[in-house]
Amino acid sequence: MRILENVRGRDAYIIQTTVFPANDSFMELLFYVDALKRASAASVTAVIPYFSYAKGDKKDEPRVSIRARVCANCLEAAGIDRVITVDLHAPQIQGFFSKPVDNLTAGPILVDRLRREGLRDIVIVSADAGFAKDARRFASYLGAPVAIADKRRVAHDDSAEVLGILGDVAGKVAVIVDDFAISCKTLVGNAGHLRAMGATEVYAAITHGVFSVDAAQRLDDSAIKKLFVTDTIETHPVALSKRVETVSVAELLGEAIRRIHRGESVSRIFDWRDPRV
Amino acid sequence: MRILENVRGRDAYIIQTTVFPANDSFMELLFYVDALKRASAASVTAVIPYFSYAKGDKKDEPRVSIRARVCANCLEAAGIDRVITVDLHAPQIQGFFSKPVDNLTAGPILVDRLRREGLRDIVIVSADAGFAKDARRFASYLGAPVAIADKRRVAHDDSAEVLGILGDVAGKVAVIVDDFAISCKTLVGNAGHLRAMGATEVYAAITHGVFSVDAAQRLDDSAIKKLFVTDTIETHPVALSKRVETVSVAELLGEAIRRIHRGESVSRIFDWRDPRV
Amino acid sequence: MRILENVRGRDAYIIQTTVFPANDSFMELLFYVDALKRASAASVTAVIPYFSYAKGDKKDEPRVSIRARVCANCLEAAGIDRVITVDLHAPQIQGFFSKPVDNLTAGPILVDRLRREGLRDIVIVSADAGFAKDARRFASYLGAPVAIADKRRVAHDDSAEVLGILGDVAGKVAVIVDDFAISCKTLVGNAGHLRAMGATEVYAAITHGVFSVDAAQRLDDSAIKKLFVTDTIETHPVALSKRVETVSVAELLGEAIRRIHRGESVSRIFDWRDPRV
Amino acid sequence: MRILENVRGRDAYIIQTTVFPANDSFMELLFYVDALKRASAASVTAVIPYFSYAKGDKKDEPRVSIRARVCANCLEAAGIDRVITVDLHAPQIQGFFSKPVDNLTAGPILVDRLRREGLRDIVIVSADAGFAKDARRFASYLGAPVAIADKRRVAHDDSAEVLGILGDVAGKVAVIVDDFAISCKTLVGNAGHLRAMGATEVYAAITHGVFSVDAAQRLDDSAIKKLFVTDTIETHPVALSKRVETVSVAELLGEAIRRIHRGESVSRIFDWRDPRV
Amino acid sequence: MRILENVRGRDAYIIQTTVFPANDSFMELLFYVDALKRASAASVTAVIPYFSYAKGDKKDEPRVSIRARVCANCLEAAGIDRVITVDLHAPQIQGFFSKPVDNLTAGPILVDRLRREGLRDIVIVSADAGFAKDARRFASYLGAPVAIADKRRVAHDDSAEVLGILGDVAGKVAVIVDDFAISCKTLVGNAGHLRAMGATEVYAAITHGVFSVDAAQRLDDSAIKKLFVTDTIETHPVALSKRVETVSVAELLGEAIRRIHRGESVSRIFDWRDPRV
Amino acid sequence: MRILENVRGRDAYIIQTTVFPANDSFMELLFYVDALKRASAASVTAVIPYFSYAKGDKKDEPRVSIRARVCANCLEAAGIDRVITVDLHAPQIQGFFSKPVDNLTAGPILVDRLRREGLRDIVIVSADAGFAKDARRFASYLGAPVAIADKRRVAHDDSAEVLGILGDVAGKVAVIVDDFAISCKTLVGNAGHLRAMGATEVYAAITHGVFSVDAAQRLDDSAIKKLFVTDTIETHPVALSKRVETVSVAELLGEAIRRIHRGESVSRIFDWRDPRV
Repeated sequence: MRILENVRGRDAYIIQTTVFPANDSFMELLFYVDALKRASAASVTAVIPYFSYAKGDKKDEPRVSIRARVCANCLEAAGIDRVITVDLHAPQIQGFFSKPVDNLTAGPILVDRLRREGLRDIVIVSADAGFAKDARRFASYLGAPVAIADKRRVAHDDSAEVLGILGDVAGKVAVIVDDFAISCKTLVGNAGHLRAMGATEVYAAITHGVFSVDAAQRLDDSAIKKLFVTDTIETHPVALSKRVETVSVAELLGEAIRRIHRGESVSRIFDWRDPRV
Repeated sequence: MRILENVRGRDAYIIQTTVFPANDSFMELLFYVDALKRASAASVTAVIPYFSYAKGDKKDEPRVSIRARVCANCLEAAGIDRVITVDLHAPQIQGFFSKPVDNLTAGPILVDRLRREGLRDIVIVSADAGFAKDARRFASYLGAPVAIADKRRVAHDDSAEVLGILGDVAGKVAVIVDDFAISCKTLVGNAGHLRAMGATEVYAAITHGVFSVDAAQRLDDSAIKKLFVTDTIETHPVALSKRVETVSVAELLGEAIRRIHRGESVSRIFDWRDPRV
Repeated sequence: MRILENVRGRDAYIIQTTVFPANDSFMELLFYVDALKRASAASVTAVIPYFSYAKGDKKDEPRVSIRARVCANCLEAAGIDRVITVDLHAPQIQGFFSKPVDNLTAGPILVDRLRREGLRDIVIVSADAGFAKDARRFASYLGAPVAIADKRRVAHDDSAEVLGILGDVAGKVAVIVDDFAISCKTLVGNAGHLRAMGATEVYAAITHGVFSVDAAQRLDDSAIKKLFVTDTIETHPVALSKRVETVSVAELLGEAIRRIHRGESVSRIFDWRDPRV
Repeated sequence: MRILENVRGRDAYIIQTTVFPANDSFMELLFYVDALKRASAASVTAVIPYFSYAKGDKKDEPRVSIRARVCANCLEAAGIDRVITVDLHAPQIQGFFSKPVDNLTAGPILVDRLRREGLRDIVIVSADAGFAKDARRFASYLGAPVAIADKRRVAHDDSAEVLGILGDVAGKVAVIVDDFAISCKTLVGNAGHLRAMGATEVYAAITHGVFSVDAAQRLDDSAIKKLFVTDTIETHPVALSKRVETVSVAELLGEAIRRIHRGESVSRIFDWRDPRV
Repeated sequence: MRILENVRGRDAYIIQTTVFPANDSFMELLFYVDALKRASAASVTAVIPYFSYAKGDKKDEPRVSIRARVCANCLEAAGIDRVITVDLHAPQIQGFFSKPVDNLTAGPILVDRLRREGLRDIVIVSADAGFAKDARRFASYLGAPVAIADKRRVAHDDSAEVLGILGDVAGKVAVIVDDFAISCKTLVGNAGHLRAMGATEVYAAITHGVFSVDAAQRLDDSAIKKLFVTDTIETHPVALSKRVETVSVAELLGEAIRRIHRGESVSRIFDWRDPRV
Repeated sequence: MRILENVRGRDAYIIQTTVFPANDSFMELLFYVDALKRASAASVTAVIPYFSYAKGDKKDEPRVSIRARVCANCLEAAGIDRVITVDLHAPQIQGFFSKPVDNLTAGPILVDRLRREGLRDIVIVSADAGFAKDARRFASYLGAPVAIADKRRVAHDDSAEVLGILGDVAGKVAVIVDDFAISCKTLVGNAGHLRAMGATEVYAAITHGVFSVDAAQRLDDSAIKKLFVTDTIETHPVALSKRVETVSVAELLGEAIRRIHRGESVSRIFDWRDPRV
């Protein structure tokens, strides 16, 4: 691992998503940052489309690690000057860093793709109460109502029992939204439940498609007609389900880098807070 | 401001809530921590029942401060070794600190008080989608269903338009739960909405009663029958509404300090994750 | 609190004096610094005309805080790159910061104002032995002798008993100089003493007019004919005494910012060490 | 990943070697350290029998990372208080840490095993000029002369061309010593060379047997009669060659932990500098 | 340089004054602190009777170093946990450290020695306006009036022109007090001046006798009858003047260490603030 | 000590070798770095031709300091942004710094000087096993074989017993190479040994000629015909032996500074890894 070009006095941008495999990618990123700083780069910006440790963002049980903070510390110890990332699991993770974090959102890209699908009479379903605020944004942009899956975690792993749907979905096209999916169990469970409650069709739109080995089969067998996902993760070790359609965040990242480099405002592109604009 | 007793080699616990007034209380806390460290205290634990900067925990708009991280940095720069607090607005704030944070919860105390009220056929209403996971815990302990207020923030201040209630509340006693209340506008708005949707009575239970000057009148005029709140804030500049009833976290904090000092597990008392226990 | 303009890559200067009220102003400053750094400002210079924590600069009693160091730590933790201030209570406070501090002096501005007053046969009186070195500079510039008030602090608060004047003042116009005044008790006490020892008139010149609520009345009733003070503090909650005349440091600060921004020497404007120049 | 026992106020020792797989083991170690610190452990000692990043200890080419320093930073950022390890590739790596590092040596254990083998008329052969100082210690303890393999690295990977042996080996039993082996190419090349120069038999003794997949076959086909290696690495993904014999460092590590815990000197057990003792 | 005893888990106290020679002593101190920390000492207290960099405590000219802060940083980077020192040139230097500093004072020891001298009708003369507050304490304890030497520095080196004495000294025994003396030029100049102004005899009492090579001759030729100085500096490269009498701070330091080690208050012994006690 | 020119916003390069005397030079360097940073220099590069603490780079005995790390910490605490140095005793020392270190090598300069000497049939002799890798580079460039002095340290000071030479030297011109020499005992001992083993002539080439007082006589009396040394140290307190010839690294350092300042690659000039170029 060695940087082949002279970087002395240059502003460096390293693009590295942190799967697959997560730890190897992350350590490699740390070593590249260190190499760039020791080679006297003027600044180093880590562009991490998917920050895989973001789920470990709190002590929700006794004696666990806050993994995202550990990783933030490691990146800052290695010498990063800025982070660009997409749809952190919790926006608070920006506060784990001392350096500026530009947390872009793929929301408008997914909204745009959904619009082009031409669906009518839709309801936005938040896959999880924790995502309800973001679901509300999807709903505002698409002029649709919101429903929330009332999920209760019953064990310490990623599986979770779905208890019900709060809100009205009968006779509507349900679009489940979330920030990421791994096994797709929750997504598929929600989809079945939505159909049982009278939803006419079920779509889904998520930012990060991490996808475990068994996810493809599970999606193929599910009530989900189409799952829109961005390309923040490209290196899947297995083929994706044919129901998955990828939309790209490449332009979003490219525009962010261009604006940072020129000293222009980035908030213009990551701010979708006001649906009336 | 001076510490009158010799503290050399002692483990010091400073109890200071960060209102009213917030900034004076916080700076005073910093100066006491510094004084204790310079006086060679073996360790300094800041006991902050209400950490008032916790709402500033993310960059949800361009060019704002992550105030809770700034304050965490200040406390650590002053020399704290540990923080004990109650019901942080977001559990991720623990990750803003490098030092251990024991984030206690007043949930079981409020649940206990609600049980003693003898209410029947209740529904737990989360005042906000962001609080829905906690509301689910109240519901599990009380054997009740959950509903969620679908709030949309329409301006950059604390006021927020309430859009509706997701979930079934007709014919039930609604108990709104949240982590804190200031103006009580949202609480009162939700209460009116719940009655309009058929709730027979409306109660509320929150941890931190910050209460602005106009809150008392608003509560007195509202559909809320009783508001249970803990005493994490004692120094209210104005009299509280008569509908407010205070339950104490003093024993909870005392027990936490006792356990920390004896090297016993604190998780036993802050862990209410499994409702079957 | 939000920064409305794009600051990415810009050098930001925040001007904030730390009274009235002290803690609110200081915390606000910290939050603005953090907001600027997280918004990717190239550098942040805090311009603090009056640094109100400067009196807490040492452990002069057991178990007290060194408040100025705590505040320096907080500012650096928040991300400042430089501080510009005026007449710190002790020049050592520069050493509480790791970042460069430009400690400007209002001395030449006050000397200039005194010269225009056309006083004759004056003696410069240091209000306090700790200010005697600075008093010597006033005296050198004005070609006058020096006297020193021999003050002994008799309690732990700001009040202090005046014991006498060291040096010859009979038949002269006494000009008391100091860095700041709050209650004006010492100033007024010294003035009375000077008149009793034969001074024909008493003037005073100080940099920071903090002025407590009762200061105006005390000055109006005193032997002080005129008190010259700079505008490092503008937001007094009460009206000042009519004997107070304000001279402005605005040009001094503006010139310092201009020079810093252009990479020119600032020492030219804050260096008044050699009276013969 | 969660610590099941209460650790508040306890001194914790985590034993984790950093292969196989290296990065997963290392990140897991970081997360455990963080979990222990946030659970208020009094101190955390990382016991790392084989520190796999130790080869990346310098910038020997332009624009490369000093990986061992990056990893030291990460461990200290996560919160370690002390490191115990065995035979670091360079003793300077202790200086990458601010915290105390006890760098134990397996040398006396390997010397002891060699003695029990009853070999006569031996010569200690340093596999590499960089290991010659350590080889000299083996030789002093065993009362044997030293020879040095004059290796020249010809490419940027781990392979290396062997140029010759400096020193007299004809008619002797050669014992090659080194700190670690991966592919065993150098070891096997040296062994062949030693036989060609008249060595009657070839043995080898190394501390860390990392062993790549093809190492077993290479050793089986080589002139090496027996390779003694310690168990600092236990989790080999493939079976080892039958010519490999493992000696244990378990007692060494146990004794070090015991002495650290009791506040006794550890240098007694890691100091083999004076062969006459 | 090596520590011969096992220090694992022990509280270490290193006593090292920082002259003669200053830089060698200081670097040696840093290396010992590092050695102790890497040898797992539980804590390291640097006992520095004379902290020679204390004069470099501010930027009193453009582009100079704040040397005392640099040295504080070095000591903290090396790993000290606490500093014990005597009569810092400015008490603000405590704030250059993050760690606790116990700034003892030799004042009461010198007062006690002066009392035993049986002098009558004395006046305490501060050698410098900057020392006037301390001179006031000597005066209060001895029931004597105060005078202040009005010194003006005329060049950038340590020499200084004496302008006069503020206060009444005619017919009295003058006792000049200061924190340290190097060339004794100021001291001797003041003494001559005091005699010229009618003082009957001149004594002096200082804490730190740094004494340059030419100081002895200068004192022998002066109007100073006796100079009391403590033994904070023992390693003078040349013989002292016979007019110098040394009083010891050994008991003071010993008592401070004993109290720190037992967790007792140290302020009792360094606090001479209230002369009525 | 004061910087006379305005440096605000400039990139400063301080050239200071760290002998003679070592500690005074080093502390002076720290104070200059601090002065430059506080004077708002944009960056400070310490150019240290000979970093004299580099030998203290590991804990090779119990309870010793890693002096080079302590000094790296001090330099970084004072505020350096980059270090330029020549032939560090161990390349790992780069990892003691967080900031970039450009470790230049004088090897090609010495090789060039040796070539111009026109020696024939030479053998490169590494003065120490630890320098064997570098000796190999000299040999590759000069097309010569390598021999290694098998040195065993027998006491804790710098003296060392020479045991023998590994490799063939009979009938050849021996050129001893090393990174530095102080007393020249080892060098002279090796030279005698080489002549006894049949070397026809002995030369030596080292980077850093530290040279103790007795070194000149020792060299004059030795078998060494000529000792080539660079001028990384200029301030020798005594005259050098006439057998010493100095070659300059001034152009090397100048070129490095020029390239750093222009943002060009420095590795071009310090990289002599591939002898075929």
